[in-house]
Amino acid sequence: MSELRQDPTTYDWVIIAKERARRPHDFKRDVSERPLLPSRSDDCPFCPGNEERTPAAAAVYGDPDNWNIRVVPNKFPALTPEGDTTREEWKLFRKSRGYGKHEVVIETPVHNKCIPFMEDDHVAELLKVYRDRYHALKKDPNVKIILIFKNHGLTAGTSLEHPHTQIVASPVVPPFIRRRFEIATQHFDNTGRCLYCDILHDEHQSKDRIVKETPYFTALHPFASHYPFETWIMPKLHSSSFGNILEVEIGELAGFLKEILLKLYVSLGDPDYNFIIHTSPVDDEHKTYYLWHIQIVPKLTFAAGFELGSGININTAVPEETAAFMRGIKV
Amino acid sequence: MSELRQDPTTYDWVIIAKERARRPHDFKRDVSERPLLPSRSDDCPFCPGNEERTPAAAAVYGDPDNWNIRVVPNKFPALTPEGDTTREEWKLFRKSRGYGKHEVVIETPVHNKCIPFMEDDHVAELLKVYRDRYHALKKDPNVKIILIFKNHGLTAGTSLEHPHTQIVASPVVPPFIRRRFEIATQHFDNTGRCLYCDILHDEHQSKDRIVKETPYFTALHPFASHYPFETWIMPKLHSSSFGNILEVEIGELAGFLKEILLKLYVSLGDPDYNFIIHTSPVDDEHKTYYLWHIQIVPKLTFAAGFELGSGININTAVPEETAAFMRGIKV
Repeated sequence: MSELRQDPTTYDWVIIAKERARRPHDFKRDVSERPLLPSRSDDCPFCPGNEERTPAAAAVYGDPDNWNIRVVPNKFPALTPEGDTTREEWKLFRKSRGYGKHEVVIETPVHNKCIPFMEDDHVAELLKVYRDRYHALKKDPNVKIILIFKNHGLTAGTSLEHPHTQIVASPVVPPFIRRRFEIATQHFDNTGRCLYCDILHDEHQSKDRIVKETPYFTALHPFASHYPFETWIMPKLHSSSFGNILEVEIGELAGFLKEILLKLYVSLGDPDYNFIIHTSPVDDEHKTYYLWHIQIVPKLTFAAGFELGSGININTAVPEETAAFMRGIKV
Repeated sequence: MSELRQDPTTYDWVIIAKERARRPHDFKRDVSERPLLPSRSDDCPFCPGNEERTPAAAAVYGDPDNWNIRVVPNKFPALTPEGDTTREEWKLFRKSRGYGKHEVVIETPVHNKCIPFMEDDHVAELLKVYRDRYHALKKDPNVKIILIFKNHGLTAGTSLEHPHTQIVASPVVPPFIRRRFEIATQHFDNTGRCLYCDILHDEHQSKDRIVKETPYFTALHPFASHYPFETWIMPKLHSSSFGNILEVEIGELAGFLKEILLKLYVSLGDPDYNFIIHTSPVDDEHKTYYLWHIQIVPKLTFAAGFELGSGININTAVPEETAAFMRGIKV
C-alpha cells in the first residue's frame, strides 16, 4: 500500500505510491533519437556574435569580446523596474504594477555546454555570478526576495537551448516562501535550533536518502519528496542566505553540483529539470532560522487534478530507492 | 508592464504577464490531425463488455447489463482502505499508511462521449452520482476530505481516453485546503460574511470577468487567475459542501457545466484540462464560512522553476480578455 509522508518544512503531505512506483531505472528516457546540439547556433540570441539581440548586458565576465558569462535583462520580463510597488485595492481585489527585475545569466558562450560538462572553474565562476547578481539586485530597497532558478528543457518551461539561468527580484514575498520561513522560525522558537540543520542531522543518521556528502555539502532525496528524483543540496555551514555563501563553499559546490547534475543526466537520459536556489527573504538574511539550499526537480510526471485540488503530490518513486540508485551511478 | 494580483482566497500572488500575454485565440490548438475516437474500444477497461477488467463495482446506475454510469475502485489506487491512520514518527519525519479510498466514476458507456456531448439528463445523473459517492465515502469516520476531480488528456495526467472522474477520500486535510478554509473563516470573523459570496458579489459588480450567469450559478475567470482560461463555477446558494447540493441546483448545473466545457472545447480545440470540485473538509460541512465551487484548469502552459520556487504563477493571459472571449463563443 502507499504511504502518506509529511514534509517537515511545509507540513504538506505527499503520497509515496509504492505499489504504483516505477523502479528508478524505468524513469530513464531514450535519448538515441534526439539530435545533437551544435556548439554555436546562428539563430541563438545567447550565442557569441548575437549580443545585439539581447537587451544591453547588466554584467559581462571575462574579456568583453570573448566573454565567459553574460548577464542580460530578460527580453520578456515577468517584472520590470518601472513605477513603484504601491498596492491598489478595489473591494476584495488587490494588485500592483509588476515592479521588479528579471535577468538572464548566459552561463557559457558554448551553445551545447550545460553544467555537467563545464570545467569546475567555470561552474565556480557561474556560482560567483549568481552571488554577485544577488548582491546587485538587493540594493534596490523595493526588492524583498531574490529567486535564482534554471529551466532546462521544454517541459521545464524553456524554449531556449543555450544554457542559462534566470534571476527574478520581486517586491512581494509570496505566502509560499513566507510559510517555509515561519515554520522554520517556529521550530527555532521551540527548540533553539535550525529546522533544516536538524533535518540534515537526522538524514545523516538515517543514511537512507543521502546521495553524496562532502565536507561542506550534502545531497539527498528528501523524506517527503514531492517529485521522483527530487534532490536537495544542503550546505553544512548554517546560513539563511545564499548571498552569504563563502569562497570555500563555492569552490566545493562547483564540482558537487556538476556531479549531481551529471548523475541525473546519465541515469535519466538528460531529463528536463528545474533547479531553484531557496534563500531567505532579503530583510531576513541576518536571522538564523533558515538554511539556504538548492532544490533540483526533474520533470518526469505531470501534475493532475488531485495535486491541483489538494496540494498533495503523488510521487511514483520511493526516495530511499532513488537515492540508492543515484549513489550507485558512477560518473 | 505586467501586473501583480493577489488571490483573495489564498493570498497567493500571480503575475499577469500582459506584455507577454497571448491573445485568447492564440491558445487554440490544431485538432485537425488528431484521430477521432471510436464509440467503443475493445482495449478499454471502461467500455461495456470489459467490466471484468476493473475491480468489482462500488455502484452501478441503470440496468446492470446496460448501465449508464459505473463506479469502481481505482485499479492503481493512491490510497486504500487497509490498516489505520495512525501517524508514525521518527525524529522530524512523520508518516502513516496510505489509508483512504480512491474511486473511478465511469461517466458513460460510450468511449468517445465526453461531458460537452452528453444529454443534459445524463450530466445531471453524473452530478448525482458524485453526490451519492460523496455521502457513501464520508460514512467512514477516518475520512476528513473528499476530492472529486477529473483529468482530461495526457498532459492533464490521464492515459485513459474513456470519460471518467476520480474521487479520493483522504484521512489528512492538507495545508493547501486548510489554509483556504482558515482565510475564509478569518474573513467571516472580520465581516460576518462568506469570503466567496463577497467575491461573487464584487465580480458581478465589475462584470469584466463573468463568463455566464444563471439563477443558481455563475462562471467567471478569477481576478487573480493562476492559469490562462482558469474558470470557476460558483453557486449562488451559500453552502460549504458539495454534498449538500440541491436537486434544483443539479438540474441547472448539468446544462451549465456542459456549456462551459463545450465553450472550452470549441475555443481551445479540445484542450487537456483538470476540473476539481472544491468543498469543505467533511467535519466542517456545517460551518458557513466557505463556498463549494468547481475549478476548471485547461493545461495550456508548463510550470517552470519560478513557479516551483516561489508559488507565484505567471499567467500569460489576461482574465478580462479571456472572459470576454469566452462570453463571445456561441455553442
